[in-house]
Amino acid sequence: MVRRVCLIGAGPSGMAALVAFNRLKERGEECEVTCFEKQEQPGGLWNLTWRTGTDEFGEPVHCSQYRDLFSNGPKECLEFPDYTFEDHFGKNIPACPPREVLLDYLQGYWKLHGVKNEDIHTRHVVRNVSFDEATQIFTVKVTNLLEKIDLEQQFDYVIVASGHFSVPHIPHFDGIEKFEGRAMHAHDFKNAREFTGKKILLVGSSYSAEDIALQLYKFGAERVTISYRTNKMDFKWPDKIHEVPLLTKIEGRTCHFKDGTSAEYDAIILCTGYQHHFPFMPSELTLPNGNIYNLPNLYRSLQWYGVTEGKKDAAGKLFYVGMQDQFYTFTMFLMQGLWVANVIKDIIQTPGREECVQDIEKMFASNADLSDYHKEIDAQTAYVLQLAAEIGYNERLDVSKIFYKWEDDKAENILTYRDQTYTSNFTGKESAVFPIPWLKCFDDSLSGYLKNCV
Amino acid sequence: MVRRVCLIGAGPSGMAALVAFNRLKERGEECEVTCFEKQEQPGGLWNLTWRTGTDEFGEPVHCSQYRDLFSNGPKECLEFPDYTFEDHFGKNIPACPPREVLLDYLQGYWKLHGVKNEDIHTRHVVRNVSFDEATQIFTVKVTNLLEKIDLEQQFDYVIVASGHFSVPHIPHFDGIEKFEGRAMHAHDFKNAREFTGKKILLVGSSYSAEDIALQLYKFGAERVTISYRTNKMDFKWPDKIHEVPLLTKIEGRTCHFKDGTSAEYDAIILCTGYQHHFPFMPSELTLPNGNIYNLPNLYRSLQWYGVTEGKKDAAGKLFYVGMQDQFYTFTMFLMQGLWVANVIKDIIQTPGREECVQDIEKMFASNADLSDYHKEIDAQTAYVLQLAAEIGYNERLDVSKIFYKWEDDKAENILTYRDQTYTSNFTGKESAVFPIPWLKCFDDSLSGYLKNCV
Repeated sequence: MVRRVCLIGAGPSGMAALVAFNRLKERGEECEVTCFEKQEQPGGLWNLTWRTGTDEFGEPVHCSQYRDLFSNGPKECLEFPDYTFEDHFGKNIPACPPREVLLDYLQGYWKLHGVKNEDIHTRHVVRNVSFDEATQIFTVKVTNLLEKIDLEQQFDYVIVASGHFSVPHIPHFDGIEKFEGRAMHAHDFKNAREFTGKKILLVGSSYSAEDIALQLYKFGAERVTISYRTNKMDFKWPDKIHEVPLLTKIEGRTCHFKDGTSAEYDAIILCTGYQHHFPFMPSELTLPNGNIYNLPNLYRSLQWYGVTEGKKDAAGKLFYVGMQDQFYTFTMFLMQGLWVANVIKDIIQTPGREECVQDIEKMFASNADLSDYHKEIDAQTAYVLQLAAEIGYNERLDVSKIFYKWEDDKAENILTYRDQTYTSNFTGKESAVFPIPWLKCFDDSLSGYLKNCV
Repeated sequence: MVRRVCLIGAGPSGMAALVAFNRLKERGEECEVTCFEKQEQPGGLWNLTWRTGTDEFGEPVHCSQYRDLFSNGPKECLEFPDYTFEDHFGKNIPACPPREVLLDYLQGYWKLHGVKNEDIHTRHVVRNVSFDEATQIFTVKVTNLLEKIDLEQQFDYVIVASGHFSVPHIPHFDGIEKFEGRAMHAHDFKNAREFTGKKILLVGSSYSAEDIALQLYKFGAERVTISYRTNKMDFKWPDKIHEVPLLTKIEGRTCHFKDGTSAEYDAIILCTGYQHHFPFMPSELTLPNGNIYNLPNLYRSLQWYGVTEGKKDAAGKLFYVGMQDQFYTFTMFLMQGLWVANVIKDIIQTPGREECVQDIEKMFASNADLSDYHKEIDAQTAYVLQLAAEIGYNERLDVSKIFYKWEDDKAENILTYRDQTYTSNFTGKESAVFPIPWLKCFDDSLSGYLKNCV
């Protein structure tokens, strides 16, 4: 009997799963995959929108990206072995291209593997997933947003690929409800030009704070303060950016920090991360919060066993993809998609529940060992290679050395790291050099960028 | 057998329903009512939050109100016959008090009628409602946000009171995705102080545009333009506010209008209204969009019969309350709650489906006759009085004359209409005069306001 798979989400992870199922199909190993996507087109976070809050259908806006976003990591770290950037663009391009360039590359890869937009039920939002333990069948309720009708379908497997950098984690700070400026989360940051000439406080010390600080600097903010909870990012910031300990309270426009200092701000942008949010899943099958590397309840951080309190099993038939903290992205998602597809088709076997649970617990405990960037990179490299080995995928996926160099380049000069070059594992070539340094480049369009790639 | 009622939402409409059920209970007519509310406390839109987008649980923010919001209509139009403002505050207060004062009054009314916060399942979000036609039973799936567990309960009746000024309607305008300033919906407008000294474009010509224009003026915006689709509001605006035809396109910071004029803006605030959004309801039982007075599919704009294409019946056991466009508010919600409670308890009988459907269609068609404010006020007055008559509620609910005077006062001077006085139907007294004109009053707190009410 053909296996009916429900795939929730057509972002980079969901699309990688569709590519994976197409690859199996080419080998005669077909599944019946139905993909539901809330947005108008595949691409997940890479689809930029000017909207904040809710979209035209009243559904929460997914996109957390913003205008003038350039990749904050080298393309050589996410390049597909079977489709290099040079394959796609017909020329060697620089390491850190803007959003549209990366989306275009993804679209090329999906096309290469025969994934068509028509295969995806766009503007379909999944409302409810339930699992019947007796029949081992999932029932999925979906709303077709355009036609305003509901569907209910049954599936043997469910893959949740709805992303986890989409629903903001927004803590409260004492006095923020009376802040006299603008208070917002990084999720709603759309355009650095809104903040030209302004004094901005960013709360947080991860990628959002890092990149939004740089964007604000690039677009002429008067002053950017970054408030950290535990550790400074401690880059060699330009004069207008500096770091202070945690925000403790707000009075009028004045923000007070843990070290006793205070200053006035026009806006507070909470770069406080994202939360796992699966309103369509039963709580007992819902991945708990935590932007970590080795996920609870998931064997290989993919296959669900309800290990933690209040969770149930779904007979190994439920999968989450792309839900961990990430150095690796596109290639990791591909390995995850292939691994899940291979498991569903019984091409590879996972051990029984007991062994899976032991492994989940061991891996989850090992998060504590990931005490610096190098260890995190190494752990995720090992993870990606482990998946590849289990599915017999023999390409040079290890880009840890590129990540190390990238970290070094950032430490060396946070303003110029995007202008650096890296060597592709697959073409053997060093990235091209863009003629305009990132800090001076104000055209983030695909056409404008490619024109300047010589 | 006791009738099990599920009430979705504890805003002014939902709480009015709880008051209504308590009043019936006092007469020995008890139902088992379970109320689920997403927010931390009852109050609906009247609970102000600094948050925009999603809340701490990742659920869409309900509140559309903002700091320094004062009532834009006289309290004499929403006063409860059995609990006047003077009863609550122990003194006569002015006509248009700030948000906290009205919320406090509501809380007093709920307390008077024995509705306790403990009776409401706060931080419980309804995920899914289904109706079994064979058993005529509703199944309601709910998530307890604090404990992260799901409930599933069965009910004989469902009342949807989730509000309809909470999910914004956000149209696209040509070029808005490249607007160089801030683009947002009125739903996310939280604090006029963010716009001091700024040039602001408002799109829309209803209450949001009217009131946000006034707020911006009060808090020192440099210039406010209001762009209307069909008709000007045409108040005697102060110099810094003016009206122009519809926004046609945006280039950089420049907005172009239908009359060929253009100007630069720092922010665009879309005051383009709200949409009915019931993601937890099956599409066939979902109220379609439309901020109108006489609703489709609802007998007395309350009791569901699936009249329009693609809709189904729910045996007269489904109700929506507070879903129409509104002049009347608190008292109308009370009549709606009482009417629904009386119908559920079979104290009053509604005609069979056929007659209800005819009435729904007749009333829906009559929306076309509501061509000016007076006709709208008269129609809603008649509606409220009709409900009151059907349930035998004999109080002087007709406040149409107060609404007329209010409209006249607005036409006379939009900057001072909130300082005018009206005569209470119940105390016979004219509202007190606040010593500080609205335009100069910058303290919107309950305590500050009451201190000044002498």
